[in-house]
Amino acid sequence: MNSKIDFHPVPGVRLGTACAGIKQAGRRDLVVLELATGSEVAAVFTRNAFCAAPVTVAKQHLAQGTPAYLLINTGNANAGTGAAGIEAAQACCAALAAQTAGESTAVLPFSTGVIGEPLPVEKITRALPGVLEKLSEAGWEDAAWGILTTDTVPKLISRQCRLAGQIITVTGMAKGAGMIRPDMATMLAFVTTDARLEGAALHACLEEAVAASFNRITVDGDTSTNDACVLVATGQSGARLQGSELEQFKAIVSEVCVELAKGLVRDGEGATKLINIQVNGGKQAQECFAVAYTIAHSPLVKTAFFAADPNWGRILAAVGRAGLDSLQVDNIDIWLDEVCIVRHGARADDYTEAAGQQVMDRAEITVRVELERGPASANVWTCDFSYDYIRINAEYRT
Amino acid sequence: MNSKIDFHPVPGVRLGTACAGIKQAGRRDLVVLELATGSEVAAVFTRNAFCAAPVTVAKQHLAQGTPAYLLINTGNANAGTGAAGIEAAQACCAALAAQTAGESTAVLPFSTGVIGEPLPVEKITRALPGVLEKLSEAGWEDAAWGILTTDTVPKLISRQCRLAGQIITVTGMAKGAGMIRPDMATMLAFVTTDARLEGAALHACLEEAVAASFNRITVDGDTSTNDACVLVATGQSGARLQGSELEQFKAIVSEVCVELAKGLVRDGEGATKLINIQVNGGKQAQECFAVAYTIAHSPLVKTAFFAADPNWGRILAAVGRAGLDSLQVDNIDIWLDEVCIVRHGARADDYTEAAGQQVMDRAEITVRVELERGPASANVWTCDFSYDYIRINAEYRT
Repeated sequence: MNSKIDFHPVPGVRLGTACAGIKQAGRRDLVVLELATGSEVAAVFTRNAFCAAPVTVAKQHLAQGTPAYLLINTGNANAGTGAAGIEAAQACCAALAAQTAGESTAVLPFSTGVIGEPLPVEKITRALPGVLEKLSEAGWEDAAWGILTTDTVPKLISRQCRLAGQIITVTGMAKGAGMIRPDMATMLAFVTTDARLEGAALHACLEEAVAASFNRITVDGDTSTNDACVLVATGQSGARLQGSELEQFKAIVSEVCVELAKGLVRDGEGATKLINIQVNGGKQAQECFAVAYTIAHSPLVKTAFFAADPNWGRILAAVGRAGLDSLQVDNIDIWLDEVCIVRHGARADDYTEAAGQQVMDRAEITVRVELERGPASANVWTCDFSYDYIRINAEYRT
Repeated sequence: MNSKIDFHPVPGVRLGTACAGIKQAGRRDLVVLELATGSEVAAVFTRNAFCAAPVTVAKQHLAQGTPAYLLINTGNANAGTGAAGIEAAQACCAALAAQTAGESTAVLPFSTGVIGEPLPVEKITRALPGVLEKLSEAGWEDAAWGILTTDTVPKLISRQCRLAGQIITVTGMAKGAGMIRPDMATMLAFVTTDARLEGAALHACLEEAVAASFNRITVDGDTSTNDACVLVATGQSGARLQGSELEQFKAIVSEVCVELAKGLVRDGEGATKLINIQVNGGKQAQECFAVAYTIAHSPLVKTAFFAADPNWGRILAAVGRAGLDSLQVDNIDIWLDEVCIVRHGARADDYTEAAGQQVMDRAEITVRVELERGPASANVWTCDFSYDYIRINAEYRT
């Protein structure tokens, strides 16, 4: 089942998994991360007003001290479950605390899966001893499989660099694969390092990385109730980072997050292509994002990419309805990779269907829109829309 | 091919059609409406910044006088075609004017179909004599077929009433079926009456009807470059409407437009269900529309409806990400027809999957969201998202 993924363990982070029976028998659906004493934790959560019970509880626990455990289940989102859902999330935290002689508030819970079903607390608590037995710094690959729902491949990204005289590791994992239009953080992502960072610096590092990665992707425009992204610094390397070394470190964390985010899109439900939408020449980044997301969410654009059909009129129509004030369409150029398809608002004279087709046949494509009305830029990543998206989401609960 | 549709001809409106060869051989793709002298015409057009050449030309011509002809082709949108597209639209108008000894500016052109291909002007001009020969007040059904693209059934709605001592007729036709999220008017709709209305009153009537109908529907969230809705009053009944009779008349025009709009959604690309999304209890209509459109555009909600799966968590998640300020989720109730699925922000205690399933199996379903934060309401109509939407749009040009 598992192909081997290269990764570097992170000193101070041990992982365990189990098949708790929340999903079908034999599927890993329960994961625990144990964080060594002295770890700092930063997290960002969904902005969906209907946030799930574990998001509420995780926020509360995070405000009360430094977490020692992250407890993640798939197969059930524990969302739309009201007061009973809060109690269920707390019960799972309490069970893990009891089994590790710790505080319940030192456990952050995360859930993903079907919305609106009662969380099977007993299945989770019963499986916990088996998870704790397995805790190991080598447990990343099993954990990366264990957090998945409709994803088809695990997303596990690892980088090392020498900073402050030490080898520093950044290793992270994430899961998608539907209801993906993160607005703060994606479904679930856990990134850890053995660098030593204080709370404020760690949070700044996370915010920056998320802004450059998970907040720039969309599969279907649906922001989940359960999105969360966590950054853990165990400090076990002993390296304290400042100045340009801190900036280098931040760049590596962002790189890991970007790779995870692109991995989520590439494995988006039914996705066959990764599309990068780059919009330049806007007045502010905001209007560039407006254009980029309008293209990225257009079912017509997404089905054209699925069909590898250079139907650029659909891209042009999406730009036109993005809501930009006094947009001069005569100034707009649109490119598919190196091929100019629209120049000055109409089909480029030198455009040929053959050239467009050659780009559309690629697995990764950049759509570049030049608005020519200012200095700002923005990009988002998305995927195409296929039969399989419909199949996966029509059959999800059956 | 054509099943019989009941309709009332409108005195003063004659229609003709032809197979001009713009689409595949033998498909009607050219339609002309001839409007009797004395007719008043009001029209609204797409707000897409990339509006098609015929939209630009129709607006110019409408500003220069009262139209005598509406000239409609399918199979080619004449959009994204730059200056050549404007010339092509004008050439078609000039050809029709020459053949009817009229003014070119008295012709309003409308196109729908593939974006970005040059309009085959010669095919159109060559077919015009055949269309003019066929002009007849009985030509509605052929015309309703002739304006279709990916639609599977014609939308032709007709009403009569007695006002101001006269029988007044309102008959309209429309086409969808993809790129449907009108923001001003839908793809193409032509509504005519033999009542007598002055320009300002006619325009007010159109605005009101469009706001209640075409501006409340969405198939895929994509606003077309070619949307147009035209209301013609020939005045041939002699009835002049005022006061409460004018209000009654407006209600009938709105009813015809609502039925046409619902027809477009019911026949949306790949649609198997008509979903009415009713949002009550908002502070203003605007936020009710925000919630309604967020639900209506959610691919996850739409695929759940396709699967007849009462996966109400997806509706709840869509409400939560609609961007409403300080939304109190504990106040929210959600209904599927007569079944309450969410009460006070969580699964209703008395909800059963069986009850939800019973509603989901219906062909027409109302989702009702009660926000409990104000007096405003809004509704939109949409359809589900099926394999056929992907097939139709992946194969559209091939």
